[in-house]
Amino acid sequence: MQEQSDSKPHNAMMPEDTPELRALYAAFEEQHLMPLWTQLGDLMPRHPKPKAVAHVWKWADLLPLAQMAGDLVPVGRGGERRALGLANPGLGGNAYISPTLWAAIQYLGPRETAPEHRHAQNAFRFVVEGEGVWTVVNGDPVRMSRGDLLLTPGWHFHGHHNDTDKPMAWIDGLDIPFCQQMDVGFFEFGSDRVTDYATPKFSRGERLWCHPGLRPLSGLRDTVNTPIGAYRWEYTDRALTEQLLLEEEGQPATVEQGHAAIRYVNPTTGGDVMPTIRCEFHRLREGTETPVRREVGSTIFQVFDGKGAVVLDGVTHTLNIGDMFVIPSWIPWSLQAESQLDLFRFSDAPIMERLAFMRSHVETDAP
Amino acid sequence: MQEQSDSKPHNAMMPEDTPELRALYAAFEEQHLMPLWTQLGDLMPRHPKPKAVAHVWKWADLLPLAQMAGDLVPVGRGGERRALGLANPGLGGNAYISPTLWAAIQYLGPRETAPEHRHAQNAFRFVVEGEGVWTVVNGDPVRMSRGDLLLTPGWHFHGHHNDTDKPMAWIDGLDIPFCQQMDVGFFEFGSDRVTDYATPKFSRGERLWCHPGLRPLSGLRDTVNTPIGAYRWEYTDRALTEQLLLEEEGQPATVEQGHAAIRYVNPTTGGDVMPTIRCEFHRLREGTETPVRREVGSTIFQVFDGKGAVVLDGVTHTLNIGDMFVIPSWIPWSLQAESQLDLFRFSDAPIMERLAFMRSHVETDAP
Amino acid sequence: MQEQSDSKPHNAMMPEDTPELRALYAAFEEQHLMPLWTQLGDLMPRHPKPKAVAHVWKWADLLPLAQMAGDLVPVGRGGERRALGLANPGLGGNAYISPTLWAAIQYLGPRETAPEHRHAQNAFRFVVEGEGVWTVVNGDPVRMSRGDLLLTPGWHFHGHHNDTDKPMAWIDGLDIPFCQQMDVGFFEFGSDRVTDYATPKFSRGERLWCHPGLRPLSGLRDTVNTPIGAYRWEYTDRALTEQLLLEEEGQPATVEQGHAAIRYVNPTTGGDVMPTIRCEFHRLREGTETPVRREVGSTIFQVFDGKGAVVLDGVTHTLNIGDMFVIPSWIPWSLQAESQLDLFRFSDAPIMERLAFMRSHVETDAP
Amino acid sequence: MQEQSDSKPHNAMMPEDTPELRALYAAFEEQHLMPLWTQLGDLMPRHPKPKAVAHVWKWADLLPLAQMAGDLVPVGRGGERRALGLANPGLGGNAYISPTLWAAIQYLGPRETAPEHRHAQNAFRFVVEGEGVWTVVNGDPVRMSRGDLLLTPGWHFHGHHNDTDKPMAWIDGLDIPFCQQMDVGFFEFGSDRVTDYATPKFSRGERLWCHPGLRPLSGLRDTVNTPIGAYRWEYTDRALTEQLLLEEEGQPATVEQGHAAIRYVNPTTGGDVMPTIRCEFHRLREGTETPVRREVGSTIFQVFDGKGAVVLDGVTHTLNIGDMFVIPSWIPWSLQAESQLDLFRFSDAPIMERLAFMRSHVETDAP
Repeated sequence: MQEQSDSKPHNAMMPEDTPELRALYAAFEEQHLMPLWTQLGDLMPRHPKPKAVAHVWKWADLLPLAQMAGDLVPVGRGGERRALGLANPGLGGNAYISPTLWAAIQYLGPRETAPEHRHAQNAFRFVVEGEGVWTVVNGDPVRMSRGDLLLTPGWHFHGHHNDTDKPMAWIDGLDIPFCQQMDVGFFEFGSDRVTDYATPKFSRGERLWCHPGLRPLSGLRDTVNTPIGAYRWEYTDRALTEQLLLEEEGQPATVEQGHAAIRYVNPTTGGDVMPTIRCEFHRLREGTETPVRREVGSTIFQVFDGKGAVVLDGVTHTLNIGDMFVIPSWIPWSLQAESQLDLFRFSDAPIMERLAFMRSHVETDAP
Repeated sequence: MQEQSDSKPHNAMMPEDTPELRALYAAFEEQHLMPLWTQLGDLMPRHPKPKAVAHVWKWADLLPLAQMAGDLVPVGRGGERRALGLANPGLGGNAYISPTLWAAIQYLGPRETAPEHRHAQNAFRFVVEGEGVWTVVNGDPVRMSRGDLLLTPGWHFHGHHNDTDKPMAWIDGLDIPFCQQMDVGFFEFGSDRVTDYATPKFSRGERLWCHPGLRPLSGLRDTVNTPIGAYRWEYTDRALTEQLLLEEEGQPATVEQGHAAIRYVNPTTGGDVMPTIRCEFHRLREGTETPVRREVGSTIFQVFDGKGAVVLDGVTHTLNIGDMFVIPSWIPWSLQAESQLDLFRFSDAPIMERLAFMRSHVETDAP
Repeated sequence: MQEQSDSKPHNAMMPEDTPELRALYAAFEEQHLMPLWTQLGDLMPRHPKPKAVAHVWKWADLLPLAQMAGDLVPVGRGGERRALGLANPGLGGNAYISPTLWAAIQYLGPRETAPEHRHAQNAFRFVVEGEGVWTVVNGDPVRMSRGDLLLTPGWHFHGHHNDTDKPMAWIDGLDIPFCQQMDVGFFEFGSDRVTDYATPKFSRGERLWCHPGLRPLSGLRDTVNTPIGAYRWEYTDRALTEQLLLEEEGQPATVEQGHAAIRYVNPTTGGDVMPTIRCEFHRLREGTETPVRREVGSTIFQVFDGKGAVVLDGVTHTLNIGDMFVIPSWIPWSLQAESQLDLFRFSDAPIMERLAFMRSHVETDAP
Repeated sequence: MQEQSDSKPHNAMMPEDTPELRALYAAFEEQHLMPLWTQLGDLMPRHPKPKAVAHVWKWADLLPLAQMAGDLVPVGRGGERRALGLANPGLGGNAYISPTLWAAIQYLGPRETAPEHRHAQNAFRFVVEGEGVWTVVNGDPVRMSRGDLLLTPGWHFHGHHNDTDKPMAWIDGLDIPFCQQMDVGFFEFGSDRVTDYATPKFSRGERLWCHPGLRPLSGLRDTVNTPIGAYRWEYTDRALTEQLLLEEEGQPATVEQGHAAIRYVNPTTGGDVMPTIRCEFHRLREGTETPVRREVGSTIFQVFDGKGAVVLDGVTHTLNIGDMFVIPSWIPWSLQAESQLDLFRFSDAPIMERLAFMRSHVETDAP
């Protein structure tokens, strides 16, 4: 799709400011009406002009604040979670990282329990470091370890408990802003403790579903959300390693030269893990620079390992482990890998694709 | 789905107000972080609590104001359309009738032309009275007459011209608020005049596609949007008439006793006409009262014919021809038909269904 | 897909004929085993080599024989139908017009009734001339008139009765051969008379479903088979007429120059009317010659109106009203229209497409 | 679905045998017509009455004959494969194990190569014992080892080579009979040797796709056939083991008490591995007896491990490792596990489901 010029034609619909016109506009207001012609440019821009801005949060800032919250704020029923939402500076004091997505760092102290609840909002957790917490999803205890993606789709009861004497932090991703703006949210409190304090290495969902290409006959009905509660780092790492090896062997396997990537999918359909949130993991070879991209919808990355940089709307930001950044709709971006660079990514792409709004643009030659 | 009680448990996460806590909260703000525990209730309500309110606009108010605008405001390039958006009183001065939808009354004077443009936003027009305007969609002139539904799906060029010496008004429905909040909008200007001033009785899309159960072999690829540009009143009226006759013959045909309804669909899939907007037409027999319903998502009705009332959140509003009302998410509503009551309906249900957020509740016995 | 050469390489697997080999082959037979290497060419040809042959049946032969059967053979329970199956000369005495399809001429005398039954096999009727019979499908009486396509999908009870003092003949199409070879057939007798002798102009299915682009809210669940029991000639004729008019106006509308065509579809999905049988209607302008085509699967045509010819595997056959011909898999064919030529077509294409075996080839220039 | 009674009503359509009738029947024959009323019962049975019979082949008979073929018959171009097709005794001398499926034991001697070719027919191999052969599918070498399922979907080039000094045997499954009867077969010779003699432990398809729940971004387009060339025993065994462990823990995981099972699926869709063939693996706990089932379509089992019996149409057959048996459409069957019993299964169920002919019946209590 080719960019629209921003040269706006003269507005033929600007009538002379007369008492009659003022009276008319006053009558509009009284009747809860607003003219299109005075605000078309804002309502219908040439291309997405998000209020949200591109922004980077440094793990070195996030983690200490989460730890302090751990010291000062108890976790429990009512507030439910010790989570710090990343608030996009452009979104005027809402805890939204983008118009659709919520991202937070959550912190659970030694032996603490975050009580159970369920909500229409879809949620996942990703673990950049640490271990020792189990999240219990509809009664199935799921271990949380470094590099794992854990899912709690809409209306699944879930709570967390820390089985160790060390605190643990991770990131949460949800579609809270989308649900709030669309008025689709439902919420229900569950048990004040988690319903099962067992600490198995693998959840029942994994034991039933995590066998490549094999589907249990007891699970032949397709599901809206993935039945897999945990996508383990071991598999993600192996998949990316193989893609880069295949590339070296001259085989088609990577997205583009030096860029391996997987999407976490629902094994019953091959589609996204949840209806509103796409989760992916990307690995760049040392020295790789991706082309400049623009995409409809908003996306968030967290650096899992390595050093590099992201160029957001022309500004370069260096990246270290744990750093998070948001790319609003249609903002140009590219990645640079100083070392091998591993990044977890999530976005609202399923919303854009299911509603046929997705567009993307790749700059084929750098300036 | 059973309603949640609103009794909130005591919030265990309200720490004492100490200097340390204040310092922590200040640090959050500096780092663009917001705690979940202080705002959970607003972010994740027990059930949808829309800011948008149920509201009724009377045609007797809308039409005269549109006519006055016709006298005072020229139509042309820049403002593009002489359209008055219905602004939901709960949505703080935005021209949104709901968080997802735009509804407006558009007015075109004798011999006037509204210039061509295209946008990612999906649009339709419905004609409650009058005739004489043709809308030209991707070069195909489409007659607009009473009771017709006219479609201009996303990224289709379209303009309108009035071929008569009489003005004409109709309603527009679009997904402007959704597109603005989701940052998915693209817009492009087209010809300053419409590209074809022909005034055929039927558009080429109708001639190719409006033959029940027949698909042209030249159109075997399924399309995201319906290829039908105009759904004619003659067919809608006949379909509803037959449903009520079949009901009288004791045959299953209506939604519920005395309530006939059709959905306008994309003949290539049998699904909704556009990815974000559902369009339906409902007819109630004289004396019919519908049960009280709650549904996720927002819906708008316009009375096409007859007299009756709508009960919105317990408040009864009488209805006459042309009156429009909006029902925000999860607000209870029911209809009452004083005479045979015909209503055009549109909603954002396809968004809710495609993203698996749809829920509905019907009160089986009145309190 | 490019044609395979038929030059077969020398067979390296022809061992010397020794007593040991004979003993081995005997042992194979005793153990119900057969070697692949001795029969590969027959089991796996370079391209489809159907046993079925292209063949034309003249209406001038069919109709008189059906009439004689009407004089000599009563219709009733047990034999169920006075139907004459067109037996492909290549299929060794089975009443199969192709390996998948059955085609027959059925004849019902004045005031006769063909009793009700149901079967897993999918069926339709097409009326090349006459009127006066109603087919009762799951209790819904469906008028049969010239040019109409009538459907009785699998496991729908159906019977016929002639409401007049004149006999009537029509053609039946079913997937009997496919069902017999695949062992999927079930059959159940119903009422010895039809369950409803009413003779309405339109069936209930038509009254509910035959409104272009409109779907009853009482019928939102997609169905395997079309809910439309009768596709009327009036609509088919109009659709084809419009396609040719649009072509004259320089608009894309026809399959190819001078060739208009529609497919009968299931309005709940936009797909074929039944899972195994595709039904279409084709109209060629006077003087039109279609390119030579090959397609996987078998297809049958009946001339509905006009004069012309079909070239089957290089042999030209003249065509008149009512004439039927079958084109087995991968046999080259083309049509020639001496006058405007109307043809009804049915085929097993849905089987080939759903199982991913479909291939087709169009000769772009004659040798 | 309730069984139909077989009491046939008197046939009202048996006219007196007169000269006129004989003349009519003669005229039918001359015109390639056949009356329905004389053969309805055979064409449309009350329920499937397959010509194919239930039959058991003992591995102890199959393997020695394959070995003898290895001594007497060279493998090479022309015959292509040293494969012995299991010929259903009811199907009159065709090498069909059922009306849709082909099953064979294939044998490859030390250092032998089976040349490359491709065909529209879909194929798989399953290894009940041995190792050392690599099958090269579209240039990707795939190791064949005990318990592995190897796929060569339609129109993929494939050849085999034995990299060892020991012979190897395995079973092939194809849809040859279906393709032959439907006239959909295409065949093309490829390289006389395999195109790649490498012997990697894992094929490129496995390295790209066999990571549970992870999809490569380079493979986002859904495919008709699974992109996985090899389903390894290690994963199958683990999946079944976990199901039985979960059952012991009181969790829903198995098909029925004591009966674990997985389906091999296409990870891009979650559906069957190929459009016409379903592959599954079943494990019964020692002592388990399954209820008596009838299903539309034909299915074949091979015992992979353990001892037990199958009851086919009321007749009990004991089972040992490698034994194969076929169950034609609607024939009642049940399994009995003397020890833990492992069985590989394949069937034509995708055909029956995609064409909406599938029916099944489980006897809830034995007579």
